Amino acid sequence: MKVHALARYLPVLDWGRGYRRQTLSGDATAALIVTIMLIPQSLAYAMLAGLPPEAGLYASIVPILLYALFGTSRALAVGPVAVVSLMTAASLGAVAAQGTAGYAMAALTLAGLSGAMLLAMGVLRLGFLANFLSHPVISGFITASGILIATSQLRNILGVSAGGDTLPKMLASLWHALPTTNAYTLAIGLGATGFLFWARKRLKPALRGLGMGALAAERAARAGPVVAVFASTFAVWAFGLEARGVQIVGAVPQGLPPFTLPSFAPELVSALLLPAALISIVGFVESISVAQALAAKKRQRINPDQELIGLGAANLGAAFSGGFPVTGGFARSVVNFDAGAETPAAGAFTAVGLGLAAFLLTPLLHYLPNATLAATIIVAVLSLVDLTILNRAWAFAKGDFVAVVATILVTLGVGVEAGISAGVALSVGLHLLRSSRPHVAEVGLVPGTQHFRNILRHRVTTDPELLTLRIDQSLYFANAQFLEDLVFDRLAEDHAIRDVVLMCSAVNEIDLSALESLEAINARLAETGVALHLSEVKGPVMDRLQRAHFLSALTGQVYLSQWDAWQALAGSHARAPMAV
Amino acid sequence: MKVHALARYLPVLDWGRGYRRQTLSGDATAALIVTIMLIPQSLAYAMLAGLPPEAGLYASIVPILLYALFGTSRALAVGPVAVVSLMTAASLGAVAAQGTAGYAMAALTLAGLSGAMLLAMGVLRLGFLANFLSHPVISGFITASGILIATSQLRNILGVSAGGDTLPKMLASLWHALPTTNAYTLAIGLGATGFLFWARKRLKPALRGLGMGALAAERAARAGPVVAVFASTFAVWAFGLEARGVQIVGAVPQGLPPFTLPSFAPELVSALLLPAALISIVGFVESISVAQALAAKKRQRINPDQELIGLGAANLGAAFSGGFPVTGGFARSVVNFDAGAETPAAGAFTAVGLGLAAFLLTPLLHYLPNATLAATIIVAVLSLVDLTILNRAWAFAKGDFVAVVATILVTLGVGVEAGISAGVALSVGLHLLRSSRPHVAEVGLVPGTQHFRNILRHRVTTDPELLTLRIDQSLYFANAQFLEDLVFDRLAEDHAIRDVVLMCSAVNEIDLSALESLEAINARLAETGVALHLSEVKGPVMDRLQRAHFLSALTGQVYLSQWDAWQALAGSHARAPMAV
Repeated sequence: MKVHALARYLPVLDWGRGYRRQTLSGDATAALIVTIMLIPQSLAYAMLAGLPPEAGLYASIVPILLYALFGTSRALAVGPVAVVSLMTAASLGAVAAQGTAGYAMAALTLAGLSGAMLLAMGVLRLGFLANFLSHPVISGFITASGILIATSQLRNILGVSAGGDTLPKMLASLWHALPTTNAYTLAIGLGATGFLFWARKRLKPALRGLGMGALAAERAARAGPVVAVFASTFAVWAFGLEARGVQIVGAVPQGLPPFTLPSFAPELVSALLLPAALISIVGFVESISVAQALAAKKRQRINPDQELIGLGAANLGAAFSGGFPVTGGFARSVVNFDAGAETPAAGAFTAVGLGLAAFLLTPLLHYLPNATLAATIIVAVLSLVDLTILNRAWAFAKGDFVAVVATILVTLGVGVEAGISAGVALSVGLHLLRSSRPHVAEVGLVPGTQHFRNILRHRVTTDPELLTLRIDQSLYFANAQFLEDLVFDRLAEDHAIRDVVLMCSAVNEIDLSALESLEAINARLAETGVALHLSEVKGPVMDRLQRAHFLSALTGQVYLSQWDAWQALAGSHARAPMAV
Repeated sequence: MKVHALARYLPVLDWGRGYRRQTLSGDATAALIVTIMLIPQSLAYAMLAGLPPEAGLYASIVPILLYALFGTSRALAVGPVAVVSLMTAASLGAVAAQGTAGYAMAALTLAGLSGAMLLAMGVLRLGFLANFLSHPVISGFITASGILIATSQLRNILGVSAGGDTLPKMLASLWHALPTTNAYTLAIGLGATGFLFWARKRLKPALRGLGMGALAAERAARAGPVVAVFASTFAVWAFGLEARGVQIVGAVPQGLPPFTLPSFAPELVSALLLPAALISIVGFVESISVAQALAAKKRQRINPDQELIGLGAANLGAAFSGGFPVTGGFARSVVNFDAGAETPAAGAFTAVGLGLAAFLLTPLLHYLPNATLAATIIVAVLSLVDLTILNRAWAFAKGDFVAVVATILVTLGVGVEAGISAGVALSVGLHLLRSSRPHVAEVGLVPGTQHFRNILRHRVTTDPELLTLRIDQSLYFANAQFLEDLVFDRLAEDHAIRDVVLMCSAVNEIDLSALESLEAINARLAETGVALHLSEVKGPVMDRLQRAHFLSALTGQVYLSQWDAWQALAGSHARAPMAV
């Protein structure tokens, strides 16, 4: 099959040509279900990001369409998600006050910068950079973010004014505001939260109990949030609760997403550059992990670099259509997949559905209480909170545990950007630390064989004048000195040694620092009359050593196998009296 | 031999007890020669650091004594050195103007902070941190520093006022000042520089030609700088060149080092924290590499952590006795070693010699021209400039080349702190990048043996339904995703595969991210009916996998050897028609 050259950058050309009626029905059903799910979610995440509700709808329309053109996942649903919305609020809060025009403008700039970065990473094929976010750090970060998000929404449940961008400040602010709790708001908030928790666990069995089919019950249960929205909106309207102090969404402009131009004023850009980079990476990691998990179920492949391009286009779309940073969401993508989405066309249909909603339904949202949106958010994010990662990391690897704990504490106590940065820095630092002490084993001959094993673990034969060290890792600057120290520590305690063999079977690479360490070892050994040999050197490493003229300076030999080295060197020495 | 417990932290207790007459004579000779060498050097490096000349002498007295008590090197000579003095000037320039009391105070603070950091690193055994400065980065940094230092001293050779902290700024400033060149200063500067270059290469042969013995000629040749100092001082005094505009050292206070208290004002400390850390690391690296090279010649060992304590004590001593940051110098240590220093007592005698000089000789230094000191510095640092590192790195490893070039360019163009930071960041980044794409080979059976080799390099037997991948590196967060991608890319292109074996002979470690990748691989393979097996898993890794309940979830088996896996799996499949 000849694939069109453009299809690499426009996957739609690939799947679009083979589009059939049957696929259409799967896609359309999935789109309907996801649309119903996304209406309250979009409004809620806009509120979480500190933006007017319509921004949430806008952020779900053009971005979805662009991702459908450029993305490679067949099931990913793109739009505002909880963690990215929280990060958006945290970074915009530093440059403008919520509710101002500058704040909404900064949101466009943030989406534009993030889109440009994702696009650039995709074109430069830098997708692998996301791998430096270790799984435990991501888990810790998402758990801490979930706690922060849920706490931040308590003010909407209580109907009070409270702020704070860290957990201690939020809790202190809520505590002070507690006496001003609005009873009506609290009733709606608790009612909605309780209903949503119940719906999440019990609605499907209840519907089945009423005789509904399994699939229909499954799909109808997804409408729980919509039921909460309608019921609470009706209650506010019917009982005039707005006059009793219940905060409502209010007037939402009716119409399709506007064309907006983000500001690229230098001071705004420089203030948002780092936040945009962090949002891009976190958003990409969340999106790609969902996309890959879903693709694997159908033995399809996701192209990470093309995914970056798809998400980049989606964010640029958000920047020019009144939105804010978006990414592929976990819950909605799973729903999309389960509901039978076969191609990105499902996303396009969802965009149409949300466009219709923005055009037709916004007047109905006037009396929607913020408490209901807060309940939607709280129920959604509490499923992200998973403290078992702490046990798991503790049991499996202490380094991971340290990184998770630091990520969680810094995210809660200092902020989201500091938290994710601390996690990355710590996990990279701990890895470097471990790799700076490579495993090196002193080996001897297993009697009756040609095999060499660790003298500490096996009964082996050694020669008092021959020291053989097996290096179990590639040599580079951070561990080269370690090897040097090891050789000379060993020699300083054992003056009988006349030959040192470094067994390089596991050395895949060697850098200039390691070469210089080998040269130093060779030269210093020569000064004390000890010869240095190598054995089992891999081809590419051998080529490099040759090119650097190391082999001609080497006082000893390079042996193809450790057995050759043993045969040549063991017992070869005239037994001199031991030096002391 | 029972070693006193205190001797770990006070090596003097170890070597001091066995001190004998013969050692004394070696130490005293070495001390005399080093003292004569250090007088002009101390004054010159103080000038380079932007401090009054006496600070150079002070920085060579108490620090040497303290190092003699706490250090482990028998030959290291501690005091002001070129690169650290340049870094001192660069960091103090940011907080105070040269010549002010605040500047000298900041120098004490910098030495105090650096001393405290070195001490803390020593007690916490963090000496290995210095390994993250790769050899090429150090070479590039020292070369660039040498160029910066030599350029910075041209103004003293020309007798003009010029400034700048980067190479372009220095050159521009010199160019503007060129018309104001002082001819007398220039004559002294060029004369001294020429003489010193000549003395370095030709004085020893010349003296031997005059019938002097080899050792005496060697030692007398070291006095070249002292000759230049005396001759130029005499010339200025005799011909009244001070009145002709030749800048001189001027009044130097006579007496022993004063007791000084560094300021630890919070804003000063916070401004100097990062510079102090960089100075500590660079100074430690310079010092330890000299100390280790000299110790190896006598098959002695240096304890890096105790060295940190010795250098920390030396810098704290500098902070409390009117000095500035110090470390072990290369040239002077080699001289000390060659002149027969046997123990740190040589250092103590040098301190006594310099104390006498500070007490008795300072009036003689009044008419010493700055141009002579500049010549001393230029001749000393040009030997540090070694651009061959560029060729070497280019030929050996392109990643190292990138790191060296960046270090040199950033040091010259932006500054010393930015340069060393860029070098470290780049070399760590490039290493992580490489290790994020581990070598993984698809292997097959070498016919007639039980060995498995890369299918791309050897003629081997494979089974179309069995995929065996040998992982040539430990698995961790940055490369776990790579393995996952590789497995699924391979499976997406070959639907015949029914069993995947991961051969873990080179996997020494595994972290939580890698475990989760393995779990994901296992789960996703299960969804498509493919079983995952492991072979040749090392003991510690096996223990961890067991603890994490991975083995019970594994769809396949763990085989002790790849041969066992092959026997169990190859040809075991009912030949199904190939899926497409």
